[in-house]
Amino acid sequence: MRKVAESTIRRLSLYLRLLEEFEAQGIATVSSEALAGRGGTTSAQVRKDLSFFGSFGKRGLGYSVPELVTELRAILGLDRRYQVALIGAGKIGSALVQYRGFRQRGFDIVAIFDVDPAKIGREWNGLVVQDSAALETALAHEKIDMAVLVTPGEAAQPLADRLVALGVKAILNFAPVQLTVPHDVVVKTVNLALELETLSYELTNRG
Amino acid sequence: MRKVAESTIRRLSLYLRLLEEFEAQGIATVSSEALAGRGGTTSAQVRKDLSFFGSFGKRGLGYSVPELVTELRAILGLDRRYQVALIGAGKIGSALVQYRGFRQRGFDIVAIFDVDPAKIGREWNGLVVQDSAALETALAHEKIDMAVLVTPGEAAQPLADRLVALGVKAILNFAPVQLTVPHDVVVKTVNLALELETLSYELTNRG
Repeated sequence: MRKVAESTIRRLSLYLRLLEEFEAQGIATVSSEALAGRGGTTSAQVRKDLSFFGSFGKRGLGYSVPELVTELRAILGLDRRYQVALIGAGKIGSALVQYRGFRQRGFDIVAIFDVDPAKIGREWNGLVVQDSAALETALAHEKIDMAVLVTPGEAAQPLADRLVALGVKAILNFAPVQLTVPHDVVVKTVNLALELETLSYELTNRG
Repeated sequence: MRKVAESTIRRLSLYLRLLEEFEAQGIATVSSEALAGRGGTTSAQVRKDLSFFGSFGKRGLGYSVPELVTELRAILGLDRRYQVALIGAGKIGSALVQYRGFRQRGFDIVAIFDVDPAKIGREWNGLVVQDSAALETALAHEKIDMAVLVTPGEAAQPLADRLVALGVKAILNFAPVQLTVPHDVVVKTVNLALELETLSYELTNRG
């Protein structure tokens, strides 16, 4: 498969959200214009994005909503559920555990770890916070698909190495460092201060 | 100024972080290779990114760390501080208020709003949570540069409209909707489930 830009994937996710809303409203077909208008893009971009993955829709008739929902779920790997381990039971970790958006999209947090003795043993959303030192023991018999890493910067790389050794192939990293992982592991880093910096850049440089 | 891709801006932010680390270690000059190695990119990309904004560095000598720090701060608009209003005092809002990364980069949360009577009047990190209904009164004499919106989807657009009317020119949006704003307002939407979807896409589609 050709390499697809991350911006395309993000738009596919947005189209899927819009299609699910249309489906909930009982709408059977949509035009590329309808998807574009709500997704903040153009109908030409919608057609280009979708044509990349196959031939969807019929000229003059638009896209079948349930078919496109099914196709996009398959393309995005959302036709299954994922077992997610959360490493770091701080404020952001706490928000993520209770974030319904994860479970709604098929991401189930099934284990939580921290190094803080005050947190270890406490119950969070039905899960007991476990000691990060015991990561290998705790995950020996549990298949973890993804890890969400919400630790201080200096703790992140050693934990990433241990997660990779345990077979984790995808990491969502909130720690303020660039992680080094083998080629078959995917890392996505979210840096909230950096998001504000893209705004300050825009505020400073617009004409 | 030419339009610069957001991916370039994000790399500049990463270079700045690395340069600040080098500066803290007393390192006076760095090569594009050093910046590339830690930033997960190539030295050619580093030179290209920086040359876009001017002529930095000397052939064979590399970049002066303090000079490049100053230049990048100016380019990214980080040579000043920003007053930020937080709308939505939920779990993620709570994490953001206590997130040191914001203040470190010059983003000061100076006002917090919520609609929940149980939250209004409570003190959060030295700030009293105010009633969202009183947004206009509360911000009448306060210059707000940016807003961070952490509300349910249906509440986001009306609040965005009110913030724009109050003169806010930049919004970091955590609500799961695409906001419509005038052309002179910048919106950056962060969708945490969507970040996991880029990972599930990669897990599903890699060769």
